[in-house]
Amino acid sequence: MPARLLGGGRGCGPVSAVSDAERGARALLLRATEPCNVSLLRHVRRVGPEQAVDDIRRGRRFGDGDLASYAARILDFDGGRALEVAASLGVRLVCPGDDDWPVALDDLAGIGVDCLALWVRGRQSLTELCDRAVAIVGTRAATDYGASVARGLAIGLAEHGWTVVSGLALGIDAAAHRGALAAGGATVGVLACGVDKPYPKAHVDLAAACAEAGVVVSEHPMGSAPHRARFLVRNRLIAALSAGTVVVEAAPRSGARSTARHAAELFRHVMAVPGPVDSVTSAGCHQLMRDRPDTVLVTKADEVLEQVGPLGQFAERVTGPVRRRDLLGPVISRVFEAVPVSRAAPLERIAVTAGLRLDAVGPALAALAAAGLVVESERGWTMTSVGRDERFADAAGGAGELPLGWW
Amino acid sequence: MPARLLGGGRGCGPVSAVSDAERGARALLLRATEPCNVSLLRHVRRVGPEQAVDDIRRGRRFGDGDLASYAARILDFDGGRALEVAASLGVRLVCPGDDDWPVALDDLAGIGVDCLALWVRGRQSLTELCDRAVAIVGTRAATDYGASVARGLAIGLAEHGWTVVSGLALGIDAAAHRGALAAGGATVGVLACGVDKPYPKAHVDLAAACAEAGVVVSEHPMGSAPHRARFLVRNRLIAALSAGTVVVEAAPRSGARSTARHAAELFRHVMAVPGPVDSVTSAGCHQLMRDRPDTVLVTKADEVLEQVGPLGQFAERVTGPVRRRDLLGPVISRVFEAVPVSRAAPLERIAVTAGLRLDAVGPALAALAAAGLVVESERGWTMTSVGRDERFADAAGGAGELPLGWW
Repeated sequence: MPARLLGGGRGCGPVSAVSDAERGARALLLRATEPCNVSLLRHVRRVGPEQAVDDIRRGRRFGDGDLASYAARILDFDGGRALEVAASLGVRLVCPGDDDWPVALDDLAGIGVDCLALWVRGRQSLTELCDRAVAIVGTRAATDYGASVARGLAIGLAEHGWTVVSGLALGIDAAAHRGALAAGGATVGVLACGVDKPYPKAHVDLAAACAEAGVVVSEHPMGSAPHRARFLVRNRLIAALSAGTVVVEAAPRSGARSTARHAAELFRHVMAVPGPVDSVTSAGCHQLMRDRPDTVLVTKADEVLEQVGPLGQFAERVTGPVRRRDLLGPVISRVFEAVPVSRAAPLERIAVTAGLRLDAVGPALAALAAAGLVVESERGWTMTSVGRDERFADAAGGAGELPLGWW
Repeated sequence: MPARLLGGGRGCGPVSAVSDAERGARALLLRATEPCNVSLLRHVRRVGPEQAVDDIRRGRRFGDGDLASYAARILDFDGGRALEVAASLGVRLVCPGDDDWPVALDDLAGIGVDCLALWVRGRQSLTELCDRAVAIVGTRAATDYGASVARGLAIGLAEHGWTVVSGLALGIDAAAHRGALAAGGATVGVLACGVDKPYPKAHVDLAAACAEAGVVVSEHPMGSAPHRARFLVRNRLIAALSAGTVVVEAAPRSGARSTARHAAELFRHVMAVPGPVDSVTSAGCHQLMRDRPDTVLVTKADEVLEQVGPLGQFAERVTGPVRRRDLLGPVISRVFEAVPVSRAAPLERIAVTAGLRLDAVGPALAALAAAGLVVESERGWTMTSVGRDERFADAAGGAGELPLGWW
C-alpha cells in the first residue's frame, strides 16, 4: 500500500504505527454497521478491529448485534481497495494511533460511543486544526439574525486563530463555515454522509472550500447518503472535536441540542446565543439555558474565547457611554441633584434640599458651573440644558448614601 | 388624630398599635434625610424614631450624620400635620407594626437599609397586594420589543392573580403597569418622589390608575422631587416588595441592574429576559445572566411563575410540532431512512442499507406504506412526497442506535 494511503497523510508528520491490515479493518467496520453501535464497539475494544471483522464474516455472535446484516454490508467490500480509491480522491482514513488522530476523539470512548476512524478530505492536519477549535451549530431554518450572529462569531474566532467546526448543513452551519472562510481562517466540516458526497448538494462548493481551508470529515464510507440517525451520531463528533459548542439558533427539538448534550457529556463548554423571546429559532437556545445552568450565554466571539481560551482571557466588558455626571464625587453629585431644573433657587435653599452644609455647597456649585452643568443668575442657581440632559441619565453609580459598586 | 390617619387605613383591618407620636416621628425622619442613611438608620434601631427626631433637633451627634442639615430639613415640618394633609389626599403612612406593613420590607434591615415607613396612595391593602407580587423592571429607553414583552409578562402574571410591581418610569415600567391594568390585575407603583407628584409628569394618569387598581408608594414626603440617588434607593423597595424581579430590557449601566442586585441580596428570585445580541437594551440583561449564574432566563409569564410560584408549578415545555416519523419505532425508523428518496430500490437492497434482516424489513415497509411515507412500484420501494418532507425534519429523538432521550 503506498504511503499516501496512510492516515498520517501528506504534511501530517511521520508515517503512522497503524498497520495496513488494521486500517483496512477499520474501514470495513465503518461500513459494516452504523457508528455508535455499542455492541460492536464493545467487541472491538475487546478483540481489536481485525478480529471483529473476522467475527462478523464468520457469523460469530457478540452482544445483540445483527451479524447477518453486518456481513451483508461488507460482502463485496475490500478495505484496502477502498483506501486506495479514497487516496486517489485526496481522502485518507485517520485511525487511533495515527499522528493525526486527535486525542480529543478518545474522550468518546469514555461515554461508550467510540469513533473507530475518520475519513478525512483535505491536506491540513486534523490534530492541528482541532488544537484550538470551537463548534458553531444551529438550525437549518436559520433567521437572518441567526445567520448573521453565526457568521460574526466565526469571523471573530477565526481572527483569533481558532478553527470553526460545524456540520456543513444549511442555515447556521453554513453561515459559520462561511464566516471562518471569509476571515481567512480554518474550518472543519463534519458530515453525516460520505466526504465525497456532501449533503446538501447545494453545499458541494462550500465543502470543497472547507477541505481547502481545513478538512471535511466523516465516519461514513465514501458514497454514503445522510440518514436521520447519522445526523444525530455525527453531532457527537462535532462536540468531541471542539473545546466548546455554541448553539446560535435552535428550534425546541433541534438537533443542535443533541450536539450541546454531547458537549456537556464530554466536559466541553456549552454556550448558547440568546434572541428575541418570540423567535421559534431562539426558543431552543433559551430552553437550553433554562434546562442546563452550566450553559453560558454568549453574544460575541470575545465571550466565547473567554470560555474556551486560556485562563485569564476575559471579554471586554460592555459599558454605557461615560457621562459627565459620572465623574462627579458624592457631595458635588448631591448638590447637582438639588439644583432646580427650571426655577432658580438660592444657595441656602439648595443646601437644605441637598441636606448639606452651606460651606460644602458653595464650592460644589462653583465646580458644577465650571463643568457647564449649572448656571447662576440673579435669582439663584439653575441647571443648564446640558445639566438637564445629564440629570436623569439611565445610569447607576456615583451619587447617594447607598453603598454602590456591585456592578 | 382621626382614625383615617392611621397606617392601617380604610379596609385594611384593625387599628394599628403604632402610636400617633411614633408615626409622626417616622414622617419627620423620612423628611430629615434621604432613605438609606445608614448612620441614622443605626441610630433609630438603637433609640427608636421619636428619640432620633429629638436628637436631630437638639443637635446630638450620632455616627457621622450631618445633623445641622437634617435639622434644617425638618425645621418647619410638623409630622402630625403632614399626616393630616396626606389623609385629606387619600394618602397614609404605613409603619412597621401596622397590620398593613408588609413583613417582606423587614428583610431590608437585614442588609442595613431599613425602610422607616412608606407613604401609600390607594385603598388596597399593601400586604395583600404584595403577598403574591413580581417586579417587572427595565430601561426607560425601551424598544418596541421590550415594551411588548413587559406588557405580555404583566398580563400573564395578572391573569394568574399576581401583582405587578414597578417604578412608574417611562419604557418597561410603564408597559408592565399598563399590562397589569389591561388584564384587570393589581399593580404597585414605587416612586422616587412624593406619591402626590408622580414622575414623569406624563404618568400622572397612569399613577392614578395604579392607585385605583393597587397602590402607589414612596419613602419620600409628599411634594418631593425625584433625584438620581432616589431612583437607586427606590429600587431596593421594588425588589423587597416582590418575590422576584424580572429585568426585561436594560442598558449595560441601567438602574434595573441595581434592582436585580437588591433582589439577589434579599434572596429574591432574579430573572432576565433575553433579546437580540445586537440590541443595546438587551445587553444589560445578557450581562446580568453572564455575571450572575443565579439569574434565570425567562421568556414568558409561565416561566416567571415557575420561579416564584409554589413548588411543583412548572411552565409548559416548548416543543416542536409532532411529526409523523417521530411516532415510528427504532426498526421502522431505520427502514424508513434506508428507502431511497427518488430511485426505487428492492426490499433486499433496503435491508442491506438499513443493516437489518429481510424478515424485519418487509413488515416495516408495509407499515410505512400504510402511514403514507413510502410507496411500492414495479422497480421497488421509494418515498412519497410526504415521506420526503418528513425525512430531514429538524427534529431529535426516535431513530438510531445511539441512546437518546436526554432532552
